[in-house]
Amino acid sequence: MSKMSTPLADLFLQTCAQIHPPSADAYASARLRLDTLTKPLGSLGRLEDIAAQWASIRGTDALLPVRKAVYVFAADHGITAEKVSAYPREVTHQMVLNFLAGGAAINVLARHHGADLHVVDAGVDADLSELRGLIHRKVARSTRNMLHEPAMTESELYSALAVGIELAKHAAAGAITGASVEQATGRGTGLDQAAHTHKVEVIKAILSRHFPRLPHADPLQVLRRVGGLEIAAMAGMMLGAASHRIAILCDGFISTAAAALAISIAPDVRGYLIAGHQSAEPGHHLLLERFELSALLSLDMRLGEGTGAVLAMSIVEPAIALYTGMATFASAGVSEVSE
Amino acid sequence: MSKMSTPLADLFLQTCAQIHPPSADAYASARLRLDTLTKPLGSLGRLEDIAAQWASIRGTDALLPVRKAVYVFAADHGITAEKVSAYPREVTHQMVLNFLAGGAAINVLARHHGADLHVVDAGVDADLSELRGLIHRKVARSTRNMLHEPAMTESELYSALAVGIELAKHAAAGAITGASVEQATGRGTGLDQAAHTHKVEVIKAILSRHFPRLPHADPLQVLRRVGGLEIAAMAGMMLGAASHRIAILCDGFISTAAAALAISIAPDVRGYLIAGHQSAEPGHHLLLERFELSALLSLDMRLGEGTGAVLAMSIVEPAIALYTGMATFASAGVSEVSE
Repeated sequence: MSKMSTPLADLFLQTCAQIHPPSADAYASARLRLDTLTKPLGSLGRLEDIAAQWASIRGTDALLPVRKAVYVFAADHGITAEKVSAYPREVTHQMVLNFLAGGAAINVLARHHGADLHVVDAGVDADLSELRGLIHRKVARSTRNMLHEPAMTESELYSALAVGIELAKHAAAGAITGASVEQATGRGTGLDQAAHTHKVEVIKAILSRHFPRLPHADPLQVLRRVGGLEIAAMAGMMLGAASHRIAILCDGFISTAAAALAISIAPDVRGYLIAGHQSAEPGHHLLLERFELSALLSLDMRLGEGTGAVLAMSIVEPAIALYTGMATFASAGVSEVSE
Repeated sequence: MSKMSTPLADLFLQTCAQIHPPSADAYASARLRLDTLTKPLGSLGRLEDIAAQWASIRGTDALLPVRKAVYVFAADHGITAEKVSAYPREVTHQMVLNFLAGGAAINVLARHHGADLHVVDAGVDADLSELRGLIHRKVARSTRNMLHEPAMTESELYSALAVGIELAKHAAAGAITGASVEQATGRGTGLDQAAHTHKVEVIKAILSRHFPRLPHADPLQVLRRVGGLEIAAMAGMMLGAASHRIAILCDGFISTAAAALAISIAPDVRGYLIAGHQSAEPGHHLLLERFELSALLSLDMRLGEGTGAVLAMSIVEPAIALYTGMATFASAGVSEVSE
């Protein structure tokens, strides 16, 4: 992509430059402590991995306190003009209202887990400027129709990335989730066989228009041409979170797509990511495998909204509680393995 | 097995006679309600299955309140004289002390999830009679050495079953977990290759002694000959829980073995069971498949103590919260799938 030098492009480049790997020392120190706890070595499995990763992200083997926030990014997609979604476009707007009214799945789960919920308008095709409780960051009223032109201009791309970067800056340390309303409107249930075949044809036409040879290697170009405003904002938030050493608890397919772009842009983002949920959507596991991520949960969910990520908090938090709360062999007077 | 008629054998038979399937009507009613919630049909996956099963167990589509209790059953095994465990026998006693002191993994998780923890001595080979906070139900100081004789007499078997049946009677409605200390002492880490080979030889000798032809079809006989006191107590508790229409959240391998025996004794127990965690122990998934159970979590844990079951509570509870807390399409004014 051409090298733009605008304040927002500069913000993006500066953020990427501030991303460093999590602390290997804190990781090793946490592993040592885990082996002193009253349990057979390694018997807490993934929970031990999570605790050690958490230590590496914080840069210390003191893992508390844990603060949690969920960010749901909403935007519409120009491509829906091609009838590739089972739901009418107004559902995006309606779901934003449902999020603000507290009745959506993610509201229930965020309340249940004591996580702050933030709803961000990154590009909903409706005038939401009067809505209270919404974080107003509309870059455009939907992306453009990527069947005919790139989904975003370069300016729109950097604006959307900056939305996420700025939100990460303000976010407190703790688990952070990127999710999207697009998931609820574009895929999932409701597409019959004919509609699905049509969708596949549209995707082929899009790829052949934008990437006539191989898929493009430049992740920014991929994002701009065939991405979404909420995906760009999420990718920006993940970059920003990594630059501030904040853990990122990733939801399903769409969030993982944003994570994949963020890792492609800055490989050290990988160490800050925890994959929350294996979506029932085909292709998600391929994306996870590609980046050597393994989701904590696999519950056949395909809702989005950040629901998988918030459920995964209920695994991450006990992992940290075990690390900080269990007795050691020495303190409890329990024999270790006999020789 | 010979038909004993003793008060405890009668209690067992009466309990089995009181087990009926969960309510199909409440299940259907819950499914209907789930389809009115603001989400694509079925998009909450396993969480919807859990909510509907919960309704069927309660016999009503009103799912609240949820009460939670964890029961950890501790006992020693005569077979450890054959050196098939990496840990010395006194670890069982020490871990009971650790449970009572609050420093074990299950203590941390039970506190984290707000579940009452009950520790039951079903047959620890130590005098624990002075210990406060322990539920004293010692049937014998360990089972017998099953390499040479049945693990239990008939009287011991019915006593151990009655331990669980009586505890289920006193338990409040809610999720109940059976787990065992035996898991921490008999398997898991710490067995090297030579010790493992030896263990396999001992198992072969035991099977050939007790079941010279095919594995015995009578689950009570299997339990008496090659079971454990804590497994019998857990099986009794599961039978008792089903008779009182209480959901059973099952932990890893050993709990599932108890569940398998309970289902073999009374097939309707199946509807009350939720498999919490897929253990890293080989063989557990075979046992789950045999009874068409699919664990909610798979986190490479092999600790036991009920830890997997309590973690699974953090999936069951949000499932119930979503069912009771989400808006409907009608109440939220959200469009359903377009035709």
